[in-house]
Amino acid sequence: MKSSHILLLLSLASTGAAAFELGAPKNNNTDNLVWTGHLSPDTDSVTSALIAAHIYGGTAVVPEGINPESQFVLDYCQIAAPKPLNDFSQKAVGLVDFNQKTQLHPTIDESSIVAIVDHHAIGGAPVNMTQVTPIDIRAWGSAATILADRAESLDIDLPAHLACTTLAGILSDTVVFQSSTTTEYDRYYAKELAKEAGIVDLKAFGQKMLEAKSDLSHISAAEILTMDYKNFSYGGKKVGIGVAETLTAQQLLDRRNEFVAAMISYKETQKLDHLFFAVIDTKNKRANLLWIDDIDAAIAAKAFTGQPKQGWLVLDGVTSRKRQIGPAIQGAIEGKK
Amino acid sequence: MKSSHILLLLSLASTGAAAFELGAPKNNNTDNLVWTGHLSPDTDSVTSALIAAHIYGGTAVVPEGINPESQFVLDYCQIAAPKPLNDFSQKAVGLVDFNQKTQLHPTIDESSIVAIVDHHAIGGAPVNMTQVTPIDIRAWGSAATILADRAESLDIDLPAHLACTTLAGILSDTVVFQSSTTTEYDRYYAKELAKEAGIVDLKAFGQKMLEAKSDLSHISAAEILTMDYKNFSYGGKKVGIGVAETLTAQQLLDRRNEFVAAMISYKETQKLDHLFFAVIDTKNKRANLLWIDDIDAAIAAKAFTGQPKQGWLVLDGVTSRKRQIGPAIQGAIEGKK
Repeated sequence: MKSSHILLLLSLASTGAAAFELGAPKNNNTDNLVWTGHLSPDTDSVTSALIAAHIYGGTAVVPEGINPESQFVLDYCQIAAPKPLNDFSQKAVGLVDFNQKTQLHPTIDESSIVAIVDHHAIGGAPVNMTQVTPIDIRAWGSAATILADRAESLDIDLPAHLACTTLAGILSDTVVFQSSTTTEYDRYYAKELAKEAGIVDLKAFGQKMLEAKSDLSHISAAEILTMDYKNFSYGGKKVGIGVAETLTAQQLLDRRNEFVAAMISYKETQKLDHLFFAVIDTKNKRANLLWIDDIDAAIAAKAFTGQPKQGWLVLDGVTSRKRQIGPAIQGAIEGKK
Repeated sequence: MKSSHILLLLSLASTGAAAFELGAPKNNNTDNLVWTGHLSPDTDSVTSALIAAHIYGGTAVVPEGINPESQFVLDYCQIAAPKPLNDFSQKAVGLVDFNQKTQLHPTIDESSIVAIVDHHAIGGAPVNMTQVTPIDIRAWGSAATILADRAESLDIDLPAHLACTTLAGILSDTVVFQSSTTTEYDRYYAKELAKEAGIVDLKAFGQKMLEAKSDLSHISAAEILTMDYKNFSYGGKKVGIGVAETLTAQQLLDRRNEFVAAMISYKETQKLDHLFFAVIDTKNKRANLLWIDDIDAAIAAKAFTGQPKQGWLVLDGVTSRKRQIGPAIQGAIEGKK
């Protein structure tokens, strides 16, 4: 009875010139529509763009190159990579997995943003739009989980290869359910998607993903610094935080001098007020934090309590930039802590 | 089959320390929870707080006094007014019908905001939070409509008096479906709610609401200026926009000198960069816009094309601060226009 109301409503829903509706895909205008995640796209961002395009129409794209973990996932799931897009200027744009201006491709005109599906706080500097754009933010472990829930409630089936990538988005952002950001929704949809994808052992799949991103021995420190990197605006300051999640942390910890050099150069060329880099040891569930000058040392001292070891600040139990590292740095800078 | 998944999921959903879930009311922690709209609360804001408290638990409150239209609605629907709250400091706070910091009661700590249900753009200066707070923004005619949709999809019945106030929220914000912000969702839920409230002629109810707010002859210009008033942050500037919606516009247009005096005083005491006031003639569907100095005249000249008449700028077809007046002023100030 109730759900027949909603079906009726969907069939009645507004046409043509109307705003984008996350609850009524078939009424949306999808001309020139693309779905994109943030700069330095991670696996959640890439796979969320893919499922969003399946649900809502339009095309999944990436604003920058795909990282080794995402490439592994696309190969494993046998799905073509989203096309890189350098010029968003003639596009209607749906954003997945972020809401911050600092993470937006520079050619995206904010007036062309039609929808946002995300699982991050809007603190800092969210995109600034005059139009009313539908926003669905939930405190779930990944944007992929929210989109899996949208697909289910809209009764939209996912082909096996897309169930596979969406599962990968969940596993990647929750570090195979080990992150403190994991919710029961993530576990539930991961299980459902694994069934649809025909993946029997989802933890084994997650483990392969972790391994795919763990071996960074042949990649330069400068590349690793920005491989999973985000810019934030905290208290008006430009703050960069890079993380590298790895099962083999010592491999990176031993390269401290290389990272210091890469960070000095990056902080200067990007004109950052603050820059932090963390090696996330996903095996031992701790972060190893690095910064390069006294200004950032003072921020770190306000933000964290941990023990220094071999020139890295060791933060036991810290694995999430979104939930732990970012908010602590924001609190220290904005004096809310 | 699909919906049984969702029910299962809801029963599994995270407990205790977990974040607030707009999709799973019964798992939320509702200790000290209050629901509030913006400063200078309008009818959508008051009635949305009432329905949100019904769906999610907690208490509906108002951050400032209730306006004559809202008082008429509460009397008509025979429902107690939400309690005014002066100190939000020990509360968990759900926001309805706004997301701007400038419209937030000054005692609300942003870290205590647990959810936002709104139908406005996040341009300007949205609340700034480090925690991930669920946000549901849709480009619908009222926040009340979105909450009516939440109640329906969660299968939560509304008692007649609450269906009545929720209907009033929709009718007020859409100016009885005359505003350009009106969607099919607003029409659909208005009809459903009217049935549940036992209101046969919803347009007649809307007409009575319009009349209730139209006779402002006994109210001072200073009070009318801030009765339906919002502060915005556009391009870093503090911008105030007051509107008065009325069926008897001439009554207010004749009081131009009083409004000028009230605005001069208000702009100075509130240290505003820009201040605008519009008499919205709901009968003839046009705005009559007023400002008081050359700085704001320059903004108005950039933002609008209309004809001056008796010292008011007449904007035919303009009835919405949210959709028309605010974005035009923001565009003029931020140079996006």
